[in-house]
Amino acid sequence: MSRPKDFISIADWPPEEIVRMLDRAAELKRLRAARVPVSMLAGKSVLLYFEKPSLRTYVSFGIGVSELGGTPVYLPPGQVQLGGREALQDVARNLSRYCHMIVARTFDHDLVVGLARHADKPVVNALTDDLHPCQAMADALTIQEHGDLRSDRLVWVGDGNNMVSSLIHLAGVLGMQLTVCTPERYGPDPAVVERGRELAAASGGELRFETDPVAAVKDAAFVYTDVWASMGQESQAEERRSAFAGYQVNAQLMAAAPSGARFLHCLPAHRGEEVTEEVLESSASIVFDQAENRLHVQKAIMEALVDPS
Amino acid sequence: MSRPKDFISIADWPPEEIVRMLDRAAELKRLRAARVPVSMLAGKSVLLYFEKPSLRTYVSFGIGVSELGGTPVYLPPGQVQLGGREALQDVARNLSRYCHMIVARTFDHDLVVGLARHADKPVVNALTDDLHPCQAMADALTIQEHGDLRSDRLVWVGDGNNMVSSLIHLAGVLGMQLTVCTPERYGPDPAVVERGRELAAASGGELRFETDPVAAVKDAAFVYTDVWASMGQESQAEERRSAFAGYQVNAQLMAAAPSGARFLHCLPAHRGEEVTEEVLESSASIVFDQAENRLHVQKAIMEALVDPS
Amino acid sequence: MSRPKDFISIADWPPEEIVRMLDRAAELKRLRAARVPVSMLAGKSVLLYFEKPSLRTYVSFGIGVSELGGTPVYLPPGQVQLGGREALQDVARNLSRYCHMIVARTFDHDLVVGLARHADKPVVNALTDDLHPCQAMADALTIQEHGDLRSDRLVWVGDGNNMVSSLIHLAGVLGMQLTVCTPERYGPDPAVVERGRELAAASGGELRFETDPVAAVKDAAFVYTDVWASMGQESQAEERRSAFAGYQVNAQLMAAAPSGARFLHCLPAHRGEEVTEEVLESSASIVFDQAENRLHVQKAIMEALVDPS
Repeated sequence: MSRPKDFISIADWPPEEIVRMLDRAAELKRLRAARVPVSMLAGKSVLLYFEKPSLRTYVSFGIGVSELGGTPVYLPPGQVQLGGREALQDVARNLSRYCHMIVARTFDHDLVVGLARHADKPVVNALTDDLHPCQAMADALTIQEHGDLRSDRLVWVGDGNNMVSSLIHLAGVLGMQLTVCTPERYGPDPAVVERGRELAAASGGELRFETDPVAAVKDAAFVYTDVWASMGQESQAEERRSAFAGYQVNAQLMAAAPSGARFLHCLPAHRGEEVTEEVLESSASIVFDQAENRLHVQKAIMEALVDPS
Repeated sequence: MSRPKDFISIADWPPEEIVRMLDRAAELKRLRAARVPVSMLAGKSVLLYFEKPSLRTYVSFGIGVSELGGTPVYLPPGQVQLGGREALQDVARNLSRYCHMIVARTFDHDLVVGLARHADKPVVNALTDDLHPCQAMADALTIQEHGDLRSDRLVWVGDGNNMVSSLIHLAGVLGMQLTVCTPERYGPDPAVVERGRELAAASGGELRFETDPVAAVKDAAFVYTDVWASMGQESQAEERRSAFAGYQVNAQLMAAAPSGARFLHCLPAHRGEEVTEEVLESSASIVFDQAENRLHVQKAIMEALVDPS
Repeated sequence: MSRPKDFISIADWPPEEIVRMLDRAAELKRLRAARVPVSMLAGKSVLLYFEKPSLRTYVSFGIGVSELGGTPVYLPPGQVQLGGREALQDVARNLSRYCHMIVARTFDHDLVVGLARHADKPVVNALTDDLHPCQAMADALTIQEHGDLRSDRLVWVGDGNNMVSSLIHLAGVLGMQLTVCTPERYGPDPAVVERGRELAAASGGELRFETDPVAAVKDAAFVYTDVWASMGQESQAEERRSAFAGYQVNAQLMAAAPSGARFLHCLPAHRGEEVTEEVLESSASIVFDQAENRLHVQKAIMEALVDPS
């Protein structure tokens, strides 16, 4: 497996490169705390293209680029539409003349794929309807800080969304123990599951699929959930609330997990829906460490991609 | 009175700290003119959150952060809504992991207060429906440049709005002579007036309240006005125009003030409403000095708040 | 002809200054490729005001300012409206207190002219309904790289829009050979043509006006087209499509030009309308070189305008 030009999916990358990025992210976190300047992006500009409103992604990428000595150039939602006024391949080739990297957050996954195909410069997937690899990398760093990445079981409870897809890829690549617990009708993308199984077979990871949350969390070191309706699914909110009613992460469910289990959430959280205030604010909750780690892993990803010359 | 973490209201701050900020602002102005680099925000990122469209605030904070060596990260209106998609306390705690200071301009004052309560990092009030402390600090610097802050009388003519509230705090803290002249029904917030009186009692300031503009300006060294309908009050514009008809700052009113009196306005100005073209463009008008001073005082405020380590 | 404060129209500038900017742009392009830092805007802030959505202009100016060591401050569409909430002369004078240069892209040309009149600082026209001088400068640099600016004929085929106006000025100032081929009813602005003729008389340039594309391109070294409906003319799109039907730049038209003729387009391109996919993607097409040159010429223009002290 060769080293890709882009960071679109964790499944595209060799395990040793993913491990190297995580190690570098941990190092960048230490350097930041010690206020040691790092300047791998000095003199470089990174285009930040956002089709969706965003807090963590927008702010963490902007600050990440700046802290590496580079210049972020924001294209906020509504300013320019990829493939709208101008053909995607033209935008991609044009931006490649101005900037040194493109970070893109789009609804349609194919837009990011197309951008990467036509751009000479590296493209980072900062969230699409299909995948959220930067968040999964932040999750890996967080798990590493609070446990063991290969032996501690991560249990997802909730919707089989883009976040799960990237966690399945991550677990497959790194040989993690992952349980995905969703309602039957809201399971993860079968193609992703198949790819995850192939990767896990090679890495010694284990993927388990469950529909009963209590059974799922019984050997969890980390319990992870996400909102029940992602951006763009607001119209299904009512239907989803009833389908996911038994999948709330509350004190009772956390009590079914081994003691010491930690709570993860990629945020924003909807208190009283997928998680209770009590769990979110408990000492088991490490959601802000997790959010902070977006900054560090994204810096490591950008460093891994940028042309150092 | 201890030194607050945040700059939400001038009334929260000890007088000597306010004086120190104004002195530093004057020094930063000289250093800028001499093109001496200052880098108190080097390696730091400042989040600029705007709920309202803005010219002076947006541009002066962005440039101020940059000129101090920091990185401004803009969250423009519509991108993310504080307390909308995500609970305020979560946004505050999350942003605290990424950036070193938050500057926020909101309609609802409680949003800025809540942000400050939950954020580990300093928060600057860049205008709310209740207060506009950064503008009042710029006004103090301007008065200091063109007169004497303690002995020259400042006379406000017009609406008893958020700008007046911050001027009442300022006058109270610094011991200024302030006259507030408004129509009876448009007087300043009684709680602010009470707080101003307490502060003035301690500082030797004097607060006077008037409804007759001609009487009000008779000992004015500075005459200050603002638009009659602030942002969000556009629907009341007609009613307000009639209520404020006698409160226009025009050549006749300026003639009722002592000769040499200066004209202040926090801008934008509506020519022919609260001020005439003639007064705005007269040699008595120092409104652009006043606007420029936003830049210098805001830099001093940010320097005072930032963790220097 | 004295050196103007602003870059509003190429016709305002002495030929030797335009030549100097183009030479500097070529040098800046070499320095960028060699990764030599240039810092003519160090410590300076440039306001980027955009009334229209924009890709090339927004990104290339932002990166250009950064690469010269300056700070770009974006005012994106909808944030603040020049001459809307606040009088143009007030905005201009106010911004002059904060930033060191203003780059503005507006619909109404008079807004940029007014901004320049009232601002103490240099103003760059980054596209108006009347003129697009930065693009014309990029075109000149591109022609220089692929041919000879004074002896090679440039043939415009299509709409007599703002782009043509700036090319007529450019050709007049630099003594180029320019053919403008448009449908009769869509010819260039007569005042611009008259000014172009005056300039060409002095410089030894030649302006030719045609309505037949095949005749027009017969001695073309460069064939240039643009969209048939510019931003704001979307309602006329249907009518324009029929008026311009015979003006498509396709393989047949390129075959009517001398062999080796190059294809230019200021982008975005509408494949199958003003240009075919085949021509746009052919080896004759140098449209991305042309787009890239926006970055280099704009840096040279900003360097020429900035107060170096």
